[in-house]
Amino acid sequence: MNIQVNVASRGPLIAIGGAEDKSREAAILKRVVAFSGKKAPVVGVITTASAIPQEVFDGYEEVFSNLGAAEVLDVRIRSRSDAANPDLIAMIERADVIFISGGDQMRLTNILGASPFLKALRARHAEGAVVAGTSAGAACQSSTMVYGGAATDSLRKGAVKMAAGFGFIDGVIIDTHFLERGRFSRLLEVGATNPEFLGVGIGEDAAVLFDGNKILAFGPGHVILVDSSNITHSNVFELNDGEAVTVHDVKMHALVEGYGYSLSDRRVLGPDELGANSLEPKIAYT
Amino acid sequence: MNIQVNVASRGPLIAIGGAEDKSREAAILKRVVAFSGKKAPVVGVITTASAIPQEVFDGYEEVFSNLGAAEVLDVRIRSRSDAANPDLIAMIERADVIFISGGDQMRLTNILGASPFLKALRARHAEGAVVAGTSAGAACQSSTMVYGGAATDSLRKGAVKMAAGFGFIDGVIIDTHFLERGRFSRLLEVGATNPEFLGVGIGEDAAVLFDGNKILAFGPGHVILVDSSNITHSNVFELNDGEAVTVHDVKMHALVEGYGYSLSDRRVLGPDELGANSLEPKIAYT
Repeated sequence: MNIQVNVASRGPLIAIGGAEDKSREAAILKRVVAFSGKKAPVVGVITTASAIPQEVFDGYEEVFSNLGAAEVLDVRIRSRSDAANPDLIAMIERADVIFISGGDQMRLTNILGASPFLKALRARHAEGAVVAGTSAGAACQSSTMVYGGAATDSLRKGAVKMAAGFGFIDGVIIDTHFLERGRFSRLLEVGATNPEFLGVGIGEDAAVLFDGNKILAFGPGHVILVDSSNITHSNVFELNDGEAVTVHDVKMHALVEGYGYSLSDRRVLGPDELGANSLEPKIAYT
Repeated sequence: MNIQVNVASRGPLIAIGGAEDKSREAAILKRVVAFSGKKAPVVGVITTASAIPQEVFDGYEEVFSNLGAAEVLDVRIRSRSDAANPDLIAMIERADVIFISGGDQMRLTNILGASPFLKALRARHAEGAVVAGTSAGAACQSSTMVYGGAATDSLRKGAVKMAAGFGFIDGVIIDTHFLERGRFSRLLEVGATNPEFLGVGIGEDAAVLFDGNKILAFGPGHVILVDSSNITHSNVFELNDGEAVTVHDVKMHALVEGYGYSLSDRRVLGPDELGANSLEPKIAYT
């Protein structure tokens, strides 16, 4: 079954599973910078999700500087009034790379939703800027986002908490820290609630590039795809909250760097098949 | 694809995912007792896996007594010489229910493997006694058992540690505490190493009855089945230890009480289809 996938934006969109390497190696962040097509891009770091924005910003300032950024901008939005602040909007308007840190995705949507800042971010993305986020900054990218629910309680109706995300990518629901926090059961539950959406479970130090109708995996970690589109049965709609969910015939894929996935065809794409569409040729410095 | 499944024993075989309820409710242990077909069975508790056998035995003595056991036998085997002790062997020979506690499955196979005690246990099982185990006592039941490997390291070649188990059930590989410890990636790796074996991931306070070619789920928790028999690709044999494993087109099912699975047909059996083969009619007191 094909699904309708709308890629709502034009610049590269990258979701990272959290805890990405920030040493000189920095395999994932190096590529985030390279996707800008510039050797010395301006990077804007949004720390809204974090409870410790200074510490988080300092870490990214160091790593992005090491990776050649011309400037690393501290786009510190802590409230909805900040999200209407022309100075902060002006920062995002000149960023080549917009990086959204981890923390709490509900802070991101609550503070940035329907704001002039988000409008400016979308416009900058449409102009071709890279948008990348890690952990909460990745989870917020789907139209419906997962924001809570202990993995140990999942597959109990209502355990996984969902809300509306920013919708930078449609047709998928993103989860992060996926292998490390054992969140498979979260995306099994999510898939039962609406099989149309592909679950994208990103491990730590792993990432995906959403590239049109393709997902390309990169980084040292794993990306787990949970395809519920052909499930044959689930009792989820018959249950009261807290009751145990059954779901049958879910398909899963564990991807590593070099592999991709066709959202329109719902199948894995190997390195040979990807060929010229694989990740590396997309990274060309201007 | 059908697989050859040999059920190596004749009495009921029950695998429990750990942390089963031991209160008066005791949904799973109540059934373990009932499977004996006796209102007041003799229960032998094997605490070999545990580092705290007295505490573990005391807990099971209380719950099995509450559930009507005529006797609860402390089959305390701590060494290979114990496993040749005629007094302990005589205990197992009169047990209607043989219950294997949790702990370290490697202690179980190391101490009981090739012992006169294990021979007597197999014989008693062949005569119709119930064999049930929880956690390590469940993991040891498959021909190849998983005994280690942090879930966070899994899907790296060699991360999941396997060894030969007791082989009470063939065609499957059992893992426990499955949802609670996020062990999906362990069985994804196991499935890549040999797709012929169905991964049976049992959550806490969940259980399966191996009933001929069928698996029947029961208890309040979930049973996750990982069917790798139709995987289309994995790189696992090309890798060095520690490198990231990819695997495509794994099928998963989340079962709850009332649902079963056909090992020969590799498909879920619903409550309607199971009908007279479902769990309840199997519990008839003599």
